[in-house]
Amino acid sequence: MQKNLQIGQQIINSIHNVIGVKDCSLHEPVFDGNEWHYMKECLDSTYVSSVGKFVGQFEQSLVDLTGAKYAIALVNGTAAIHLALILADVAEGDEVLAPTFTFVATANAISYLKATPHFVDNNEDTLGVDPKKLYEYLNKFTKQKDGKCINLKTNKIIKAIIPTHVFGHPCKIDEIVDIARKFNILVIEDAAESIGSYYKNKHTGTFGLMGTLSFNGNKTITTGGGGAILTNNKEIAKKAKHLSTTAKLDHKWDYLHDEIGFNYRLPNINAALGCAQLEQLPKLLKSKRLLFKKYEDKISLIKGVSLFKEPKECKSNYWLQTLLLDFQNKNNRDEILSLTNENGLMTRPAWILMHRLKQFNNNPRMNLSCSESIADRLINIPSSSNLIGKN
Amino acid sequence: MQKNLQIGQQIINSIHNVIGVKDCSLHEPVFDGNEWHYMKECLDSTYVSSVGKFVGQFEQSLVDLTGAKYAIALVNGTAAIHLALILADVAEGDEVLAPTFTFVATANAISYLKATPHFVDNNEDTLGVDPKKLYEYLNKFTKQKDGKCINLKTNKIIKAIIPTHVFGHPCKIDEIVDIARKFNILVIEDAAESIGSYYKNKHTGTFGLMGTLSFNGNKTITTGGGGAILTNNKEIAKKAKHLSTTAKLDHKWDYLHDEIGFNYRLPNINAALGCAQLEQLPKLLKSKRLLFKKYEDKISLIKGVSLFKEPKECKSNYWLQTLLLDFQNKNNRDEILSLTNENGLMTRPAWILMHRLKQFNNNPRMNLSCSESIADRLINIPSSSNLIGKN
Repeated sequence: MQKNLQIGQQIINSIHNVIGVKDCSLHEPVFDGNEWHYMKECLDSTYVSSVGKFVGQFEQSLVDLTGAKYAIALVNGTAAIHLALILADVAEGDEVLAPTFTFVATANAISYLKATPHFVDNNEDTLGVDPKKLYEYLNKFTKQKDGKCINLKTNKIIKAIIPTHVFGHPCKIDEIVDIARKFNILVIEDAAESIGSYYKNKHTGTFGLMGTLSFNGNKTITTGGGGAILTNNKEIAKKAKHLSTTAKLDHKWDYLHDEIGFNYRLPNINAALGCAQLEQLPKLLKSKRLLFKKYEDKISLIKGVSLFKEPKECKSNYWLQTLLLDFQNKNNRDEILSLTNENGLMTRPAWILMHRLKQFNNNPRMNLSCSESIADRLINIPSSSNLIGKN
Repeated sequence: MQKNLQIGQQIINSIHNVIGVKDCSLHEPVFDGNEWHYMKECLDSTYVSSVGKFVGQFEQSLVDLTGAKYAIALVNGTAAIHLALILADVAEGDEVLAPTFTFVATANAISYLKATPHFVDNNEDTLGVDPKKLYEYLNKFTKQKDGKCINLKTNKIIKAIIPTHVFGHPCKIDEIVDIARKFNILVIEDAAESIGSYYKNKHTGTFGLMGTLSFNGNKTITTGGGGAILTNNKEIAKKAKHLSTTAKLDHKWDYLHDEIGFNYRLPNINAALGCAQLEQLPKLLKSKRLLFKKYEDKISLIKGVSLFKEPKECKSNYWLQTLLLDFQNKNNRDEILSLTNENGLMTRPAWILMHRLKQFNNNPRMNLSCSESIADRLINIPSSSNLIGKN
């Protein structure tokens, strides 16, 4: 009977089959641990702001989870990328490689420094940066000069690359790190979407010089608004903390700031929420993986669409469950989006590609055909960890 | 007997006399209203992040309190100044007038835009920008060209001025606004410290083109971390909201961003705290005013020091209670700071003046003798609203 239905209705039926017939958002947080307890403790202490025990505790928990030597908790993921770029010495006039297929925060943060986002292509195996294409592009269109990677077309320095682990699925980060090293490009790993995701048993965000996390409300775990920098480099960690707290030197009463600093530290009240959320992470990940399995059972019966599965040698957090339409069905994408949303099931397409936004329209780029193809065919479907009850 | 004691001990005795003998911080928040209730409601709703009813409610309460037409809630006060500067079209190479005697966030935010902080002097009447000195300086050292104010020495445009209402005491903002208008300089009013403070019965932050607020943990009311822009200009308000939410256009599912945007919106969980805190503001202000009165009774008995009182035609929130030593006692400042802190009473001097920080050491400036004199003689003493019990 499914066969006679249009693909959008088949998708709706499959989702209903898994989660029951109900309205639901794309992703919502679940607070059934110590969230309220810790936040109340924080209020009772009156330390809700830049000072307090939960910030340090949250950072230690991130260190324990990820295996990074240092974690610096910040006000959000955009601040984390911005600060990481500063710590990587990215300056006005530099270029920074970034996927065209990612959230706009990356390209924005590069722009804050008057540096230029230079767009690279992702592939369909991982949804992340394509290492082979990256290597060929850098080989052909850059030269080395004084230990720096120079864009042959613009004559500007390519200082860093920010690969994203898209929707929680790890990209081939070890290959990307190798290539970047070869070309003297620093790696800032955008793990905003991939807390709890592992590549070859190592947590995402710990392969590059720095990794960045986000704890926005739509993420696997949330602090309301929040982010972090991960690094194994002691000097960078120290400077990240210093710059995020107005570059103020320790003193009993003097307000001595020794450079231009930022107000980027995560408030203690948000960190309290984060501590509780991190405790819940194993349970959330288990539910999200089970949701994938249940979706997969149903979606695999529909012709012309597939559910994206974690890449080889990866363990994904399955942050956002992802449908990819076959090429011949790409013209159905908008109809499926309309139909699902009209039926109370929140779905969304890929982000509009960065090089298609007018503010980045003239930026340097490689051929971006794979990202363009993915963007035409991708739909995220409801992905909250509580959609199939407590498992 | 007091007479035979050194001035530091007399100050300690006076403070003990008012608040009892106990250790206390400079300023701590008080949460005895609906703080827990609203935050729990927020957690229960799961809307802790960029979406949720408390952000709008908090903004409406700010509008109701201040009389500004629009309030845009942001992640902190630094973000508010940064965004206000962008909305005032401050660009690379411009100069922005700012007090040397204020918190470093102002000079930092100007620097983010590669504009230059140009330091002006405050006076002892209000602790804020001296309008007379400002007028004379602009008159002598600037010219008008194409409707812009040009610094004769640097030939750069002076685009804006950011006067601060220091420690909650309103500066002569109407005079400053008049002068700025005369010289084609925009006014961004730094009301970070002055929520609940009025100049000629009008709330601070509502005189300039924009005003900025801070709800950091050390302020009169707090959201953990938070800030806001106030304005009567509809276009500016609209753009402030747009730019603070990644410049994303409204759409059911598309992520279309039409310019470089920021992640500067206040999270809903922090706004929930803010809503409850705003309800408490009248009570907090009453307590802080009473604390001033009680301090005044005691401090007025000590020779060589005075307690700073709200300027004429002003109603101050008395955020931080402020001692000013007489000129002949300025060498006692550090000893008083040591003695009070050693005795468990947290006190602090004025901020280190901006033009004395090495990163702003070579910046353009007027003669700053009054700020220098104030900074040498000023001590903030414990100022929390709960120091004298529930009044």
